[in-house]
Amino acid sequence: MVNETQHTCSTSSSSKSDGGSSSGSESSKDSSRCSTPVLDADRHERLREKMRRRQDSGDKWFSLEFFPPRTANAAVNLISRFDRMGAGGPLFIDVTWHPAGDPGSDKETSSMIIANTAVNYCGLETILHMTCCNQTKDDITGHLQKAKRLGLKNIMALRGDPVGEEWEEEVEGFNYAVDLVKHIRNEFDDYLDICVAGYPKGHPEAESYEADLRHLKEKVFAGADFIITQLFFRSETFLKFMKDCQAIGITCPIIPGIFPIQGYHSLRQLVKLSKLEVPQEIKDVIEPIKDNDAAIRNYGVELAVSMCRELLDSGMVHGLHFYTLNREVATTEVLKRLGIWKEDPRRPLPWAVSAHPKRRVEDVRPIFWASRPKSYIYRTQEWDDFPNGRWGNSSSPAFGELKDYYLFYLKSKSPREELLKMWGEELTGEESVFEVFTCYITGEPNKNGYKVTCMPWNDDPLATETNLLKEQLEKVNRRGILTINSQPNINGKPSTDPIVGWGPSGGYVFQKAYLEFFTSSEIVTALLKVLKKYELRVNYHIVNVKGQNITNSPDLQPNAVTWGIFPGREIIQPTVVDPVSFLYWKDEAFALWIEQWAKLYEEESPSRMIIQYIHDNYYLVNLVDNDFPLENCLWQVVDDTFELLN
Amino acid sequence: MVNETQHTCSTSSSSKSDGGSSSGSESSKDSSRCSTPVLDADRHERLREKMRRRQDSGDKWFSLEFFPPRTANAAVNLISRFDRMGAGGPLFIDVTWHPAGDPGSDKETSSMIIANTAVNYCGLETILHMTCCNQTKDDITGHLQKAKRLGLKNIMALRGDPVGEEWEEEVEGFNYAVDLVKHIRNEFDDYLDICVAGYPKGHPEAESYEADLRHLKEKVFAGADFIITQLFFRSETFLKFMKDCQAIGITCPIIPGIFPIQGYHSLRQLVKLSKLEVPQEIKDVIEPIKDNDAAIRNYGVELAVSMCRELLDSGMVHGLHFYTLNREVATTEVLKRLGIWKEDPRRPLPWAVSAHPKRRVEDVRPIFWASRPKSYIYRTQEWDDFPNGRWGNSSSPAFGELKDYYLFYLKSKSPREELLKMWGEELTGEESVFEVFTCYITGEPNKNGYKVTCMPWNDDPLATETNLLKEQLEKVNRRGILTINSQPNINGKPSTDPIVGWGPSGGYVFQKAYLEFFTSSEIVTALLKVLKKYELRVNYHIVNVKGQNITNSPDLQPNAVTWGIFPGREIIQPTVVDPVSFLYWKDEAFALWIEQWAKLYEEESPSRMIIQYIHDNYYLVNLVDNDFPLENCLWQVVDDTFELLN
Repeated sequence: MVNETQHTCSTSSSSKSDGGSSSGSESSKDSSRCSTPVLDADRHERLREKMRRRQDSGDKWFSLEFFPPRTANAAVNLISRFDRMGAGGPLFIDVTWHPAGDPGSDKETSSMIIANTAVNYCGLETILHMTCCNQTKDDITGHLQKAKRLGLKNIMALRGDPVGEEWEEEVEGFNYAVDLVKHIRNEFDDYLDICVAGYPKGHPEAESYEADLRHLKEKVFAGADFIITQLFFRSETFLKFMKDCQAIGITCPIIPGIFPIQGYHSLRQLVKLSKLEVPQEIKDVIEPIKDNDAAIRNYGVELAVSMCRELLDSGMVHGLHFYTLNREVATTEVLKRLGIWKEDPRRPLPWAVSAHPKRRVEDVRPIFWASRPKSYIYRTQEWDDFPNGRWGNSSSPAFGELKDYYLFYLKSKSPREELLKMWGEELTGEESVFEVFTCYITGEPNKNGYKVTCMPWNDDPLATETNLLKEQLEKVNRRGILTINSQPNINGKPSTDPIVGWGPSGGYVFQKAYLEFFTSSEIVTALLKVLKKYELRVNYHIVNVKGQNITNSPDLQPNAVTWGIFPGREIIQPTVVDPVSFLYWKDEAFALWIEQWAKLYEEESPSRMIIQYIHDNYYLVNLVDNDFPLENCLWQVVDDTFELLN
Repeated sequence: MVNETQHTCSTSSSSKSDGGSSSGSESSKDSSRCSTPVLDADRHERLREKMRRRQDSGDKWFSLEFFPPRTANAAVNLISRFDRMGAGGPLFIDVTWHPAGDPGSDKETSSMIIANTAVNYCGLETILHMTCCNQTKDDITGHLQKAKRLGLKNIMALRGDPVGEEWEEEVEGFNYAVDLVKHIRNEFDDYLDICVAGYPKGHPEAESYEADLRHLKEKVFAGADFIITQLFFRSETFLKFMKDCQAIGITCPIIPGIFPIQGYHSLRQLVKLSKLEVPQEIKDVIEPIKDNDAAIRNYGVELAVSMCRELLDSGMVHGLHFYTLNREVATTEVLKRLGIWKEDPRRPLPWAVSAHPKRRVEDVRPIFWASRPKSYIYRTQEWDDFPNGRWGNSSSPAFGELKDYYLFYLKSKSPREELLKMWGEELTGEESVFEVFTCYITGEPNKNGYKVTCMPWNDDPLATETNLLKEQLEKVNRRGILTINSQPNINGKPSTDPIVGWGPSGGYVFQKAYLEFFTSSEIVTALLKVLKKYELRVNYHIVNVKGQNITNSPDLQPNAVTWGIFPGREIIQPTVVDPVSFLYWKDEAFALWIEQWAKLYEEESPSRMIIQYIHDNYYLVNLVDNDFPLENCLWQVVDDTFELLN
């Protein structure tokens, strides 16, 4: 969006190939019953509707712009940034289109794949930029179809920079953004929301400010839903532009593009590219401190905050769009100071939802992937239908193959050396593995002084909820019950509870106590004896890597372990222990021992052989205490087991 | 089954027309998910599997035989008897086939329709008898297809009595029961369970006892699943027969037919028809007391109990089949004395389930029909799919028309004179209507000394659960809040609770408080003011006969008001307040004022005009208190309303 020309010209209108396919076609009575979205309506609205709703309610909002990174490592980092900045509650993010970087490809770093990741794995409403000049209609249609298939619903239609100096309009070609807008409306009807660029100072190549406004109006009248502006340095610039737009009949939302100055160099580069002029009063401040990055950033934050305040106070602005340059600190600080960064917005469901339209009805998942939601989304991405209301009979849930497992954003984020420090340069026996698990639970440094902040089964440090169980978890891990997933029982806490709450307010949430762990066959033998005493109360599934499976689950039915009751709603039960899915999870859980841990060590090294031994001989166990109103009995089960062993 | 000939002959085998259509075809991944039966597996087993399960578990069982009545009134009574005797937990009932009575027709009294009612409206596993002699193959196939369509899954295949003395076998015709067995297996594959008749003394027309046993074996080998025997008078008779059957290789279940002698006359008639001989020791007792009905019945009960005890004690008998002659007392007493009458078996769901195979997944219904389950089943009988797990988006639940409403078994069971005594020979104003409602709640006689045991909206006396609310209900009805449906809030009572429990044991059941009533527009106006204070807590729907609709329900979503959490199961939420269904129920609820009450009085009589006035001007209101863990606030809402009015 740094350099866009605004013109119009007639474009041949293509035949409709994809008209009216706005998802959610009405099917049979019963299946339409099953697919009701019972939670927040917001989750299913189009972006334009979300904007309207926020405008009506007076809630101020923000959005964030990112560009695709150059390397796979940078992409992994950017995705973590999406997760962290997503926590602040942006209305959407957008990903720029880099014509030189093979933007529509399947590369880890392409615009298309980064946007796909934001939508599907981070659950963010996402706009994908797309440029049209120097491209064939077929290429463009191909990109748009791919974007749609991946779950993208919003396109920022841009012209893009012409190649070479001597650019000439192509007859029947895509010469201007308006051609792309028309093409999208022709080929995709109303399926996609379209955003276009506005230039508060006029596009640098436009004949005049007025002519540029007319071009903008043409883009809007061709079907654009809203406008994001180029950056500017004074709130008056934007407010005048907005009034001028309204004066010529542009009534759609116009979102100011905010660029918090983050450094001398990046400002100069941006100004050069965008052909904007930095006001003298800003230059006067910056030039003397140009070598002091911190000072410039502080100034940039101050400047952005005060400009944003003026915009919001004008009453004409409801949302602010931030050019982040893929950086986190300055934008986050501006947002926090403006009070529109909304950390910890109530979780709609206990797990992170995906924003792909085909997953909009999804409201139940197996608990096993609780700490690996991206793996779950990846392994179910080919599903056409997602369970809602009930998990149901999962006799053949078609989980994706593990062979594709090493997708870049499912890889551990830490390099080998760091992992070795956490999990041990050299293992001396099973006990040193117990020690790693115990340190992860306690948060205490290991004997070499390093904290264990992640495990093969958990990308992140322990969840707050798990902290509720810390003391017991520590005790059992020390003795070889190697826990990888757990939740306490909950008997009707308010849905607004900061630790265990989820869903709309005014509701009550419930859980059955859950414990999942690896352990030796010796412990399993004792455990099974103990479990006889709890036959009616505790459901168990015990399996080894070869698939030997011991369970008391009736008829392989799923067991709901998280549910919520809300005013005026049907019951939501977002998490189940599903016996059949457990066998798919088992493959993944055992494979992680080898792929993420054993392979850190030399082949045939003692350390590697220890992990291999555990992989080959331990069992994966899950336990559910069905009596959620009573005190969790699973710790007693484990205590009884240890007692039996002594 | 009183007179059946047993022979075999070759029959032309027909082409398969309906093979393998054993319902429940596997559909898409998602919809198969939705249709999991999560409650008792028993509900979805075939009759032969249920028998096997009982045999394996050692649970003794019984079944009941009825014949179709002659008149519509008798049919209404028989259906009430089904409900009452169904409460004792029969494994199945069977309905005899009366060739002379147009048995396959749509008459209220036909075998087909009585069996249909037992399956669909009373939720009873049912065997329909069918005879084959003197009928064309097309007729028989037509009957079988109709039975299947109506949800019947079990056929008792019989020959029937040949017409006239000079009966001759028809070549290629249906001459014997075995022909019908073969025909069913040919045409319907394994869809239907088939029962055949056995004769412990040999069929009277058989060449010999041994020949008759061979015929029985042929029927079994042609595809019969089990045998029910003709009545007999001594346990030895049956036990010998059973051993003889086993000796020649008959291994399927053989169920003894028990006939408790209920009167001199009926015994004589039965003996004549069945060509059985009454043992001398029985004759010796009966003859002297033949004019003393009570004495004979007592003797019959004694005799049956001791014979049944011998059979059960033999270890060879797991189930007993009773020839009830459509009477209740003797059979019930025998069953109770044997200890196999199991009153109040735990309800699988809060409402009475239907046994039609297409409804086997149904586990959620709107609360409105709670006191009129047969009306609900009737109005949804054309549905192809039934909601399970979630009620879902009911934007167009196609409820059957009210015009068919006067189906015989939906009619009030009481005659006009009785209703007038209960509801008032002459109404003097709205207050006399309030009085009727109040008397129904309190169970006290009205001012003319009659108890009000039913209301147009409730076929039966007040439910035990409603008794929990009696005091409050009395108070509000007296003041013109005319309640027709209510339930208390429940925060996790055991599923085995005798009053509010349902579903498998080891679970917990929950309810949101619910109150539904008619009331005047004056009260509604005050109520709406009061409800503002409870906006976030209480959901309401208020509608008048013209359809004016006032609600605070979000997005017309259903509100779950009954749910249960069970070990190893997904959540069950069998009852919802569905805003859209409420408008269909409203039509029915308002129509009942006119059809069942107003029409008791002369046109233009003051009494009729009072009911008509209420019908035209009152509102139907439902209230849900979403805060189920707190004390029910609906009484406070009503109190506040009255206070506001004062």
